[in-house]
Amino acid sequence: MADFFATHKATLDKALETIRTRGYWSAYPEMPSGKIYGETAKDDGEAAFKALLGKPFDLDQPSDGGSVGGEVSPYGLKLDISYPGASADLLVETAKSAMKGWAHATPQERAGVCIEILNRLNRQSFLLANAVMHTSGQAFMMAFQAGGAHAQDRGLEAVAYAYDEMTRIPAHARWEKPQGPKEPLVLEKQFRIIPRGVALVIGCSTFPTWNSYPAFFASLATGNAVIVKPHPGAILPLALTVRVAREVLKEAGFDPNTVLLAADSAEKPLAKDLVTHPDVAIVDYTGSPAFGEWVRGNAKGKQVYTEEAGVNSIVVHSTDNLKGMASNIAFSLSLYTGQMCTAPQNIYVPRDGIETDDGHKSFDEVCEAIKVSIDKLLGDPQRAAAVLGAVQSTATAERVKAARSLGRVVRDSTPVEGMDEARTATPLVIAVEAKDEGAYLEERFGPISFIVATDGIDDAIDRAAGSAKTRGAITASLYSTDEAVVEKAIEAFGEGGVSLSLNLTGGIFVNQSAAFSDFHVTGANPAGNASLCDSAFVANRFRVAGVRRPVAA
Amino acid sequence: MADFFATHKATLDKALETIRTRGYWSAYPEMPSGKIYGETAKDDGEAAFKALLGKPFDLDQPSDGGSVGGEVSPYGLKLDISYPGASADLLVETAKSAMKGWAHATPQERAGVCIEILNRLNRQSFLLANAVMHTSGQAFMMAFQAGGAHAQDRGLEAVAYAYDEMTRIPAHARWEKPQGPKEPLVLEKQFRIIPRGVALVIGCSTFPTWNSYPAFFASLATGNAVIVKPHPGAILPLALTVRVAREVLKEAGFDPNTVLLAADSAEKPLAKDLVTHPDVAIVDYTGSPAFGEWVRGNAKGKQVYTEEAGVNSIVVHSTDNLKGMASNIAFSLSLYTGQMCTAPQNIYVPRDGIETDDGHKSFDEVCEAIKVSIDKLLGDPQRAAAVLGAVQSTATAERVKAARSLGRVVRDSTPVEGMDEARTATPLVIAVEAKDEGAYLEERFGPISFIVATDGIDDAIDRAAGSAKTRGAITASLYSTDEAVVEKAIEAFGEGGVSLSLNLTGGIFVNQSAAFSDFHVTGANPAGNASLCDSAFVANRFRVAGVRRPVAA
Repeated sequence: MADFFATHKATLDKALETIRTRGYWSAYPEMPSGKIYGETAKDDGEAAFKALLGKPFDLDQPSDGGSVGGEVSPYGLKLDISYPGASADLLVETAKSAMKGWAHATPQERAGVCIEILNRLNRQSFLLANAVMHTSGQAFMMAFQAGGAHAQDRGLEAVAYAYDEMTRIPAHARWEKPQGPKEPLVLEKQFRIIPRGVALVIGCSTFPTWNSYPAFFASLATGNAVIVKPHPGAILPLALTVRVAREVLKEAGFDPNTVLLAADSAEKPLAKDLVTHPDVAIVDYTGSPAFGEWVRGNAKGKQVYTEEAGVNSIVVHSTDNLKGMASNIAFSLSLYTGQMCTAPQNIYVPRDGIETDDGHKSFDEVCEAIKVSIDKLLGDPQRAAAVLGAVQSTATAERVKAARSLGRVVRDSTPVEGMDEARTATPLVIAVEAKDEGAYLEERFGPISFIVATDGIDDAIDRAAGSAKTRGAITASLYSTDEAVVEKAIEAFGEGGVSLSLNLTGGIFVNQSAAFSDFHVTGANPAGNASLCDSAFVANRFRVAGVRRPVAA
Repeated sequence: MADFFATHKATLDKALETIRTRGYWSAYPEMPSGKIYGETAKDDGEAAFKALLGKPFDLDQPSDGGSVGGEVSPYGLKLDISYPGASADLLVETAKSAMKGWAHATPQERAGVCIEILNRLNRQSFLLANAVMHTSGQAFMMAFQAGGAHAQDRGLEAVAYAYDEMTRIPAHARWEKPQGPKEPLVLEKQFRIIPRGVALVIGCSTFPTWNSYPAFFASLATGNAVIVKPHPGAILPLALTVRVAREVLKEAGFDPNTVLLAADSAEKPLAKDLVTHPDVAIVDYTGSPAFGEWVRGNAKGKQVYTEEAGVNSIVVHSTDNLKGMASNIAFSLSLYTGQMCTAPQNIYVPRDGIETDDGHKSFDEVCEAIKVSIDKLLGDPQRAAAVLGAVQSTATAERVKAARSLGRVVRDSTPVEGMDEARTATPLVIAVEAKDEGAYLEERFGPISFIVATDGIDDAIDRAAGSAKTRGAITASLYSTDEAVVEKAIEAFGEGGVSLSLNLTGGIFVNQSAAFSDFHVTGANPAGNASLCDSAFVANRFRVAGVRRPVAA
């Protein structure tokens, strides 16, 4: 049997080092390059994807629910893949009995298996990119990067935290208490890592792998069995993931049923049965706040980690690079058609305008600059397709239509030229007054943004940071050349529990969250109760049971 | 201003080292010795305690609720101390506005202040011992040790974990992403520790300091304001603690209202108002499962850490030291009149008896050996008083009376000779059949234990470990000379989420839980959802908000 820990120790060590320094590092190359992944990798991945279409997905796991699955690509392709269906009871019972061996594996063995899974997923990055693209609607490049390498990096980050936490607890200790002139009292102690039990990971439709991998690997590395319940519209990327995990577990001598897929449909959803199953001990959820609230309210006595949603803000005060600012904002609003949980929704601009390198600009001029930048970015249909991708759900498309009436349309949303088969929409930008809170304070998921006229910069910061605290936010962004304003914003957004990006004008966007460096979601506002990835995300997925016995001094 | 961090750095470093090795260490001497604490310390402490009686307790904090307090010592003394009363709203508002400065202190500053508080509490150990004794009913020695030095050690342990977790997050990072031949992308990142907000610590009547200090110091060290709500019957030890904390905070330049006392009465309880206050972010609770369930159910969206209750078991299979075993069990049942959350309640013994160094012993002979050992231990009234202390509440005394009818009385409970002013009770021991689950599977807090006749050792282990999982347990103990039985028990109690002590026959008792070494409560069964102390206990008491900005490469 391969010693996966030895094989991957250098990778793990580097990951352990980086989660302490939180500088730049990536274990998995983000460029879909033939030089890295093999000259035929792209074609092979596409062929492998096509070979899956119209067939039952081969996943040798217990099934008592016929077959399920009805994914339709936002690009128009009907995947027509069916997955084994199973009841919550069967899944949980199977996972529970399968995990006994896994629970007794050492932290080293488990970390080795987890990283081997990640490495094999990495080798399948082109296949995964196709799967993510044709379920989430992401453009190919993003599907390859966010759905592949970046998701794998986030998974590895979770393995590193899990390994770190488990190995910080000594397996043995000798406790020797002095008794003055008498012999000391001596106890031999053993500390055993006890996994919580069966872990459930509920995935989302927009980032099926990126948002699930941290939870999946955190729970798995700490000895729990993992049931993966994908969004019914984005099963394939996680089915592929589960298949790889099962294959590696089996090779390593563990029961492959330690990882199970819980495919379901919108008509016959499984999530509630799984969340409330008494033997499910951990629930990780990414999705809407409505169902998130249900999960938090009903997963009684369980460990619950959520990423729900928020209203992300940009505050514009002043800039020494108006063009850079406008094009940076334009890109952030356009990328994956505003369907990132990190995408900005509200852009707060003082009603009296701002100071720039191009002189004073009125509120309307700022609106116009952003509009022009979006138009420019998306002027070339091929680039538009590559930046925007497709709209994952019809609900988002409907939302865009309905949003037009919420204020003055600065830039209207249109379909993308040449993507007739796909569901597409360019950004809708609406100007509102700060008092129109009903329009802009609700999360309007998708390519919908508001430029909010405020009384001044203090009003802008207060509103943006305040909405983070009350409505949730995952990202915030400020443009200001005034360090006093910057300091005020750092303070306010810190209180709002949201991370802040300052003066992004180049190749970095507020939407981006880098594994090993950026903490994704703080857990300190309603956007989610956990952070990817920190100690708190892993340390409670296992417990420690001590065993102590007296020995002679 | 004193640099408390520099002063206490060596202590902190040693604590940080010990939480990794979990060997023996104690920062605070447990012996109430004049050589250590000063020759007049004992008399001074007693005098200081007496000086507090019959007066308003001097605690200069906001008050809008008159005065409260009606503590009566289980030894008969009426304390007649009144404390400033305050509404939940006033307390939370005060804490919230006071904590701003504290939230911005560095991990080093906060750790320094916390350890200075602990050191000053240590210097007041004799006063605290009197306070703990005359509220909890603990005998003086236990009040000094568990209420003083051991509680202080547990507090320091929490500070070490908190400091460790905070400082594992770098304050700054430089993120430099290569861009092939182009200039790298560079971000300067800042990671700011954001406390959760106002933390509430709800204390219990039996171990007012020991069970509160880990939560108090974990929340305080991570930058939160702390409101301490003692049990109405055991206010004084925590009032003294709050007073010292406020004094040190003030000296260090922080707002003393960062720590507040929420004294209340059984008639006008404050806990529910505080738990449900929207600005309370963290709740630590020690107490009954009934109110614990209420807390867990109503502290929506808050961090909740509980120690509730459980049914602790001893399983007897065989021993090479029958006398040692019996006297060890006798002491565990007697210590503080069975009012420790770690005290055993159920002793499972195979119906067919056990093998010992004194030959085969029948079930009845094992019962008798335990009875005789208790009688012997408590035969001398002075020793009895020192071991048993007093009964904290009348409810416990009533429970003892009611329990007599639950089975065959092996040893009856009696008052302690010469302690006429005090509420006392020696252990009641009852023999039952395994099928009498209604008698013994319920937690019967106090000096009530059951010797349970089982079908054999497997039945004994299954029942004991099973009850840990379903009813909760904090400790478990096994006597066996057979390593196969030991292995089975380690496995079963591990699954039950409870720590196990093996073959204790000398000066170590199952009730004892040593700071820095034993994890107290696993958090893996209904006895509590948290462990004292581990990473999970501290890591979610703060969050991290990042700030990032591009810089030139």
